[in-house]
Amino acid sequence: MSVRYRHARPALTVDCVVFGLDQRDLKVLLIERALEPFAGQWALPGGFVRIDETVEQAARRELQEETGLDKVYLEQLYTFGDLDRDPRERVVSVAYYALVRLAANTAQANTDARKAEWFALNRMPSLAFDHDRIFRVAYERLQNKVCYQPIGFELLPKKFTLSQLQQLYEIILGQELDKRNFRKKMLGMNVLVETDEYEQGVAHRAARLYRFHKTKYQELLKRGFHFEV
Amino acid sequence: MSVRYRHARPALTVDCVVFGLDQRDLKVLLIERALEPFAGQWALPGGFVRIDETVEQAARRELQEETGLDKVYLEQLYTFGDLDRDPRERVVSVAYYALVRLAANTAQANTDARKAEWFALNRMPSLAFDHDRIFRVAYERLQNKVCYQPIGFELLPKKFTLSQLQQLYEIILGQELDKRNFRKKMLGMNVLVETDEYEQGVAHRAARLYRFHKTKYQELLKRGFHFEV
Repeated sequence: MSVRYRHARPALTVDCVVFGLDQRDLKVLLIERALEPFAGQWALPGGFVRIDETVEQAARRELQEETGLDKVYLEQLYTFGDLDRDPRERVVSVAYYALVRLAANTAQANTDARKAEWFALNRMPSLAFDHDRIFRVAYERLQNKVCYQPIGFELLPKKFTLSQLQQLYEIILGQELDKRNFRKKMLGMNVLVETDEYEQGVAHRAARLYRFHKTKYQELLKRGFHFEV
Repeated sequence: MSVRYRHARPALTVDCVVFGLDQRDLKVLLIERALEPFAGQWALPGGFVRIDETVEQAARRELQEETGLDKVYLEQLYTFGDLDRDPRERVVSVAYYALVRLAANTAQANTDARKAEWFALNRMPSLAFDHDRIFRVAYERLQNKVCYQPIGFELLPKKFTLSQLQQLYEIILGQELDKRNFRKKMLGMNVLVETDEYEQGVAHRAARLYRFHKTKYQELLKRGFHFEV
């Protein structure tokens, strides 16, 4: 009876796709599952939503418990509601995603995950459940998003060169961009402020440093644009 | 025991925001609730997800049962997971939205809704549960979407005037657009094909008819653009 009742409504989980950016790579945070199903396999951090927490709170809690990662701005991605996603029972999962700067954030394992680790996208293992699919949807969304909203405010140092900004886009988009074109577009958005400073301690000719115009950046976030790759 | 179990996991529902376009207005499809809670109040069509259907199937089924509307292309909007959304118990709801052309689709009431009705946005009643909020998120998404993806393929006749296309945008965006600017942008997207035909039976000077270039329309759907209002 209790078992029948248990199956009368779908269970609800959250899954988090956390992208991390370092100087060279876009990475994703995975946990190694300690328990069945899929014990020993890599998966996205996540777990069941408790009755007394919002779905977003559940995502934050699970991320913190399983990876030690805290204070991450999670955005809702999509709810995955197909049958047979989970061999245990019917489970619907609300997925979240985030993009953080690596170095400041270190991941550490906890609770039902044996360990947490950042994987560069080109050496990612195949994932438990339908997490490969969830990851792909998140990656597509991230790449899409940088083409209609500005990024970089939380990901670059306060003052940065145009090359650093271009590198950020190249790492996320996974392709090289034409330098002239990129600069023209970025400067055309009127979101960058030229400073009087130049980068320090470089072998090549020092490049000028820029910063974001905070108000215009916020405006552009709302209004959107279209950055054609 | 069974009651305690019942509350151990959130219930899962779907809600549908279906926008309908006629010649003049953008409307939304609401149902009058027959049962408590909120009996007699207007609400978005929706209901509980069954264990043996995907979340999207649940949305289609509820929409069909409650309004008679069928074969609508529903897009997932957002999952609303706050506590206390529903006075009965903890309920998380996956919301979907759609935009249909009115006339071809007629809504009709059924099952636990006393009746279904299309409301012009400026005469919408206040809604049950947190459905006002869900509606607002859907409306914002719709307005946003037409600024970065082409629309009209399923909403206009096969051949249409630029005025008809402009009117479509004006109704969705809820504001008048500058005619010259609008035409320039639309023609600049290379998605319209000029035909040799002109509109018939009009008092004013007959305007040229256009049609969409299907391949370019599909391309633009994928690639996106930015239509600045």
